[in-house]
Order: sequence, then structure tokens, then C-alpha cells
Amino acid sequence: MAGTDSTKEAVLGGPVVILVEPQLGENIGFAARGMLNGGLTELRLVNPRDGWPNEKALAAASGADMVIEAARVFETTRDAIADLNRVFAATARHREMIQSVMTPRRAAVEMRQAMAGGAAVGVMFGPERQGLDNDDLVLADELIHAPLNPAYSSLNLGQAVMIVAYEWFQSGDETPEQFIDEGATPPATKAELVNFLERLEAELDACGFLAVEEKRPTMVRNIRNIFQRAQLSEQEVKTLHGIIRGLVDFGGKGRDE
Amino acid sequence: MAGTDSTKEAVLGGPVVILVEPQLGENIGFAARGMLNGGLTELRLVNPRDGWPNEKALAAASGADMVIEAARVFETTRDAIADLNRVFAATARHREMIQSVMTPRRAAVEMRQAMAGGAAVGVMFGPERQGLDNDDLVLADELIHAPLNPAYSSLNLGQAVMIVAYEWFQSGDETPEQFIDEGATPPATKAELVNFLERLEAELDACGFLAVEEKRPTMVRNIRNIFQRAQLSEQEVKTLHGIIRGLVDFGGKGRDE
Repeated sequence: MAGTDSTKEAVLGGPVVILVEPQLGENIGFAARGMLNGGLTELRLVNPRDGWPNEKALAAASGADMVIEAARVFETTRDAIADLNRVFAATARHREMIQSVMTPRRAAVEMRQAMAGGAAVGVMFGPERQGLDNDDLVLADELIHAPLNPAYSSLNLGQAVMIVAYEWFQSGDETPEQFIDEGATPPATKAELVNFLERLEAELDACGFLAVEEKRPTMVRNIRNIFQRAQLSEQEVKTLHGIIRGLVDFGGKGRDE
Repeated sequence: MAGTDSTKEAVLGGPVVILVEPQLGENIGFAARGMLNGGLTELRLVNPRDGWPNEKALAAASGADMVIEAARVFETTRDAIADLNRVFAATARHREMIQSVMTPRRAAVEMRQAMAGGAAVGVMFGPERQGLDNDDLVLADELIHAPLNPAYSSLNLGQAVMIVAYEWFQSGDETPEQFIDEGATPPATKAELVNFLERLEAELDACGFLAVEEKRPTMVRNIRNIFQRAQLSEQEVKTLHGIIRGLVDFGGKGRDE
């Protein structure tokens, strides 16, 4: 959510996004933003209602100006997809036609495979209120339908583009699904951790906290578990040593009793 | 993308969404829309800049009014998450703190598991420009970071909420990733298909199109392949029969030669 003006290292390429008869400039801007988030840069507009260029689109794009500025306008959907080999169409509704329907996740994989095979690929989105009409849908090879709350599956145009661009990026991304962000400070070694735990236990023995012999093993295990789970950094272990020293040496000194 | 006013069958439940100090009413509305798309209904706002209620939020929510109308306002993040057991925080930036970072996809699975275990779960999003500050982030158990274009990972608030809500819904959804939308008309049986193909071949034999004997098997196979791949409906096979009859019986009659 932090703003950035640098679009120089953009991961370029990916499918062309075609917005058919978009109505609001803001939505074109949000679509451009979502596109660039997912590394998509080529935008085509079919007959945008409020003409082109559109100041509101540029304002809403907020840093994704390069997408807006490079956008090309076409009179018909047919013209806009003329040079493409494989076309996907996002649709919220089931139509009377028989067509292959995919999730955005699967579609992203298919797009990537098609592009790897040398195909020029595009994905179409319809106007805000109606979505794509049947004449446009029949130009598509595949329909994309995102599984969503059946009682409210109506997607905002910018958000629909975001989902497709997001899935496009995920399909080519290898970020581990979970990792510890180590930030500036390295994680503690096990020796540092155990050293701290032994010091803590020694102090707890000394103050009588672990005095009940038969409960001691369980309590020690539970305490170790807490700090084990915390995946402490080297610096945090030092901080904890400081806390123990503070409590032992100066504990209660500040209290007015 | 088609509008709907019916939110009666909404798939209720899911994690609480907490927007910390959101600035623009429109973004709160877009967030509500994305939430309901993903089946999330409980919205909490921490100190929204332009007060509450906010007409612009309601206007942008476009059918997700129920989410806006039920939203609760809190003075601090701490108050907003007081009753929750597990809190996730969406962040675009890496911080100096050591915290577990997850993709939205993995986070959705974790949220679902936590809720299945009886935990009250929430996910926080920061203000548009800065994102969550470190004091808020430290209240979270897990950070969510969406893998996106490293040169433009700045997410619009409504689109960030959309991604999390979308992944939440996907994690509980069993839609096959690809299927043929059969629409109103049933697919043709193999008998209907073969019957059509044999008629076509008979007519092509009759008109001489398949006259070169050594090429005939390959040509027949290629033609069968085209229609096989089209996964025709019963109605479409009837239409093709009509096309053949039309071409055979009346072909060329309209030409002025």
C-alpha cells in the first residue's frame, strides 16, 4: 500500500488486457494499477464511453501512468483482438452458449503456457454494468469465471482486473508461501536460545518459582515452548537477558510500597 | 460484473476485516464490495479520516450496503482487535521486525484452520498512503504480503482487500478449475456427432472434395478432429446438419454468375 514512482524495473510482458466499452475513467485507472501490480503492461480500450485520453483514468492510476499512457484505443472488439492468437474473457454470468469456463487460477496457467508456446494472448473485460455481451464472448476461446460469493458475485471492474493480474503473477512466482522475515537482525542460534533458557530456569529456581519438585519438569517444558515458538533473533535474546537481569537485580525497586 | 441487489444468500462468516485509519470513503466502499464478493461481512474501522457514516463509502459499495451499514468504528487498533484470537496484517513493505510473512493464499488456509478451531480471526489493512505502522504490525500474529511486481507492489486499498477476500473464498471453494458451461442446451451424444460426421463425409464424397483416394483417410481424420474438439451441443449438431443441407441443395443459387 506504500506508494512508489519507480516503474523502471517492471516485470514486462504478460497477456494484453482489453477493456470493452469501459464507462468510468476511474475504473480504467484502477484497472491499470491492478495490471501493473501483476506485471501486465499492455492495455487496449474498445470505444471508451468518455473518450480518450481521460484525466480521471490517469489520476486513479496513481503510479501506473506508463500503462495508461501506452494504452491504445480501438473501435471494435474485433479490431482490438485481431493480432492475438488466444483470447480469454472474464464473465460473471453464465450464458446460453457452450464455452469452456475456467477459474482465474487455471486461466493464468493456460495463458502462461500459451505464451511460452509463442501465442499472443489477451484477456477481455466488459463494461461495468453489463459485462461482455454475447457477440464479444463468442470471440473468446475461454471464459474466466472467478468462484465468489454466489449471492454477490458482481465484481468492480478494477477488482476483476486485479484478480486476473494477481493470478497471472502468482502463476509465475516462486515466493515460498510462508517465511520468516528476518529484517535487519539474524535469528538466534540454538546455543544462544538454550543458554538464555538455562539462565531463566536458574533464576526461577533461585526465586522459588520452580520450587514444587513434581511440577518442575512440566513447567520448564511449557516455558521453553513459549520461547521456542517465538523464533527469536539474536538481538531479542540479548533483550531477554537484559529483562531477567533487570527483574532480578532491580525488581520491585520502583514500587512505592 | 453484472449488478445484483440480492445479498440474502450471502455466505456469511469469515475473518473480520479491520481498516486502520482509512482516508477515502470510496476505498472503504470498494473494500466492502471486495469483502462481500469473497463472503466476508464484518467490517471494523479504526478512526476513519472523514468520520462515519460516510456517503461516499455507501455509494462506492454498490450493493454491498449491508457491509457498510453494519460496520463498527473504534478509536484504536487495540480496541478494534480486542476480542479476536488471531490477527493477520496486510503489508506491502518489509519491516525491521522479525515476523512470520505469508502469501494471501497460505494466510487464507491458516485463517480457515484457525476459525475451524474456534478462534476469532481478523485481518488488518493500513491507511492508503503509508500502510500499517510498526505499532499496529506488532499487534498481528502474521503478516500477509502478496507476491507482486517488485517494481510496483503498491496496492490500492480496495484491491488489497479484494485479493485477501478472493483467496479466502478460494480456500473454501470446490469449483473445478475448468469445466464446460453447458448453458441451456445439452451436449450432443457421440451417436449424434458420428451421424453428422458420416453425413458430412458422404456429401464430401459426392461433391468430389475427397476424391483423391490416398489422401482421403488423413483428410477425414482432420475434419473429424475439428468437430470433435468443438464439443458440440445437440442443438449445434442440428444447426450443422442444416448448414450441409443448405449448401448442398441451394449452394451458389444466390450468386450472380
